[in-house]
Amino acid sequence: MREEQMHEMKGGKGHVKLFHLLEKDELSGKGRLCVREVIAPGYSIGYHKHEGDFELYYILEGEGIINDNGLRVTVRKGDVVRTSNGDAHSIENIGDKDLELIAIILFE
Amino acid sequence: MREEQMHEMKGGKGHVKLFHLLEKDELSGKGRLCVREVIAPGYSIGYHKHEGDFELYYILEGEGIINDNGLRVTVRKGDVVRTSNGDAHSIENIGDKDLELIAIILFE
Repeated sequence: MREEQMHEMKGGKGHVKLFHLLEKDELSGKGRLCVREVIAPGYSIGYHKHEGDFELYYILEGEGIINDNGLRVTVRKGDVVRTSNGDAHSIENIGDKDLELIAIILFE
Repeated sequence: MREEQMHEMKGGKGHVKLFHLLEKDELSGKGRLCVREVIAPGYSIGYHKHEGDFELYYILEGEGIINDNGLRVTVRKGDVVRTSNGDAHSIENIGDKDLELIAIILFE
């Protein structure tokens, strides 16, 4: 599984590790990302808008805060958040353990 | 989150619980299923072929055997299996705890 480390991802704090569950060409033109993301305590992915695609977050471990279009939501294991085309979001690890999630971006 | 119970799913043993992470209309025409599946010990999803779509399994908990086009593979937490359009698969819980996975079916 290909691992990638993103620094200050989308203007966020620290770095985020991406483990590619599927590569883009394995998504058969339906999307552009399918990864497990690991965000260390205090780190984040910055607030950014989705244009032409939508994203699913599924929380695997840890505790985070998602800013979903201005609405702040605390998320934990098992929670699902869908960010629609045209909407914006960010996610921050507010716990003391790694925040792990699956992120899938499909085209609208 | 909508819960569904499937009996002898695809000819498998026992029942499988599906928790719909996204409904079909939330997949924007890109796929037809996005669920967390819970398979109790000894239970299974029977061997079936994918035609016109492909499926991703991401193992969340437990231990299973996947028959991937005739090749038997043991899977555990963190494992990923992609079943392509035209290929067949089954999955069986061979552990003593629930086997939990995320299953996503996208159109080819």
